[in-house]
Amino acid sequence: MNLKQLSHMLQLSQTTVSRALNGYPEVNEETRRRVVDAAKRHGYRPNPSARRLATGKTGMIGYVLPTGSAVDIDPHFVEFLSGLGDYARAHELDLVLSPADAEEQETTYRRIVANKQVDAVYVSSPRPQDSRVALLDTLGLPFLVHGRSDGFDFDYPYLDIDNEGAFQEATRLMIQLGHRRIALINGDERETFAIHRERGVRRALAGNGLALPDDQVSSTVMTEENGYRAARRVLEGSSAPTAILCSSLIMALGVVRAVRELGLTIPGDLSLIAHDDVFSWLKPENFSVPLSTTRSSIRAAGARVAERLIARLSGLEDGARGEVWPVDLVVRASIAGAPAGS
Amino acid sequence: MNLKQLSHMLQLSQTTVSRALNGYPEVNEETRRRVVDAAKRHGYRPNPSARRLATGKTGMIGYVLPTGSAVDIDPHFVEFLSGLGDYARAHELDLVLSPADAEEQETTYRRIVANKQVDAVYVSSPRPQDSRVALLDTLGLPFLVHGRSDGFDFDYPYLDIDNEGAFQEATRLMIQLGHRRIALINGDERETFAIHRERGVRRALAGNGLALPDDQVSSTVMTEENGYRAARRVLEGSSAPTAILCSSLIMALGVVRAVRELGLTIPGDLSLIAHDDVFSWLKPENFSVPLSTTRSSIRAAGARVAERLIARLSGLEDGARGEVWPVDLVVRASIAGAPAGS
Repeated sequence: MNLKQLSHMLQLSQTTVSRALNGYPEVNEETRRRVVDAAKRHGYRPNPSARRLATGKTGMIGYVLPTGSAVDIDPHFVEFLSGLGDYARAHELDLVLSPADAEEQETTYRRIVANKQVDAVYVSSPRPQDSRVALLDTLGLPFLVHGRSDGFDFDYPYLDIDNEGAFQEATRLMIQLGHRRIALINGDERETFAIHRERGVRRALAGNGLALPDDQVSSTVMTEENGYRAARRVLEGSSAPTAILCSSLIMALGVVRAVRELGLTIPGDLSLIAHDDVFSWLKPENFSVPLSTTRSSIRAAGARVAERLIARLSGLEDGARGEVWPVDLVVRASIAGAPAGS
Repeated sequence: MNLKQLSHMLQLSQTTVSRALNGYPEVNEETRRRVVDAAKRHGYRPNPSARRLATGKTGMIGYVLPTGSAVDIDPHFVEFLSGLGDYARAHELDLVLSPADAEEQETTYRRIVANKQVDAVYVSSPRPQDSRVALLDTLGLPFLVHGRSDGFDFDYPYLDIDNEGAFQEATRLMIQLGHRRIALINGDERETFAIHRERGVRRALAGNGLALPDDQVSSTVMTEENGYRAARRVLEGSSAPTAILCSSLIMALGVVRAVRELGLTIPGDLSLIAHDDVFSWLKPENFSVPLSTTRSSIRAAGARVAERLIARLSGLEDGARGEVWPVDLVVRASIAGAPAGS
């Protein structure tokens, strides 16, 4: 259905329909609701050029890009961006990256709002009580959080994956395979996704009367080197794990290297499950021993963030809706029963 | 030196100096030249906010982001972006990504120009006689190419690394170590960087009376899997190489996997040199056998592209200057003399 057909059906002018869909104040609330409902029912999506003409919107989505010597934008970002770009292209939306000092992003958000530079923004890698979310809640600029920021007394729109459930399920499987000493090689513990994953592991262990000793958890930036170091540390410790949960495929490369250097084998001596964001350039099935994973496409998340932001701008979505995607647990050769006598 | 000091020295008003640096038409050519020369001599860089006020520039750099199912934005992009973002932040410049169908980018470039959306753009992953460069040469929007596009009868500004020299030098080293059968696992042969690298390998071989048989070259998207496949193919062939040059660290992961599966060793059976763009999350020294590399930071290139675009906008750089960075050859344990009898 196009604008003309929708207008004809509603017996309204195309201008009125267009303005209604974009929350233009000249259209009264009853008409707006009638138009939005019909658009939803018939799957109509407004043409962005028409929208821009009708409303003076910029046609741009913003992202404040944390920079500085301590910040590495990692490959997850580009995969997310691919998905967002795919969707945004079809809607003729551009993305404005505003580089900001990672420790001082507030100024940049305020500038973006003051300059009316973008129609909406998204936030990524949120932490609990994230100051960006608190700020955006007051600025009046439509936004969406990729991930979650716990600990607020207000709601906000977000898209997240079920990190806790995924790592809980992966840990439960390890326990069912007879593993009792399980380690977690996690991402930055200041970020919610890492907190949720650790919580999932602890919950599965607790449900079976087991615990996660603090020295069996590492939380770092997700590089190959950090994966290697964390694996060496626990595997050479006095109470070496027989199973490891790992928060990224890149870190898993380092875990595999450590295992090999120590003369151990996967899954004979160690079972391994890693989180897979679905990169095109590094696949878990291509590890020397194909890797079991918790899998969720971060590219699909990028596309969905763009889709929801556009829906919010068009009045097709409102309120503080949280959306949580389930995560697949994909079993490959890297897991097996715990070694006898372990 | 700040604007006030520069103006005082030149005995001009701050407004005149600011406008002169931004090519404002009200300033006569002689004055403009005097101001630009003084600014260069004293290392003055204009404040971007003042610049925007004086000139109505957008404060934005553009990039047309190729998207579509056949396009994978890869991790090199994000590393480049980190560097560009670091530099742009200090100059309060934003980056606008305009997603476009990879096969139909011209419309998007024209839209950007028509909407006066950005002050300048950069182009990446150029091919010979790249249609984007040909188009930009006619559009009047300042631009810079990251990489090179050969085969034009006009000049244009670019920043590239010496891909040909790097791979020539790496190949020459392999030859000096006694290798005679050398294979190349390259990136997409439609892109200039890959063409230049192959040319470097051929040149070094030819200089020693050797050749690169076509079946010893592969050119693909630079994924781990493609690196693995290419390595399996040549290593299992009737004339297996004793040395491999590889265009990326990610592909080298696949080469190492193939070597291991075939029961071969590095460098005993195979010497390996890969190109390293200097990722923080995957380091050549951390491969099981530390990897020799041709090394050039793509992050530094991103910062330099931002710096030069800003200089062009400020009138501190003009003309079609090409800049080519030399590439380091870093020797680590992955290379050795050719196996006896090879």
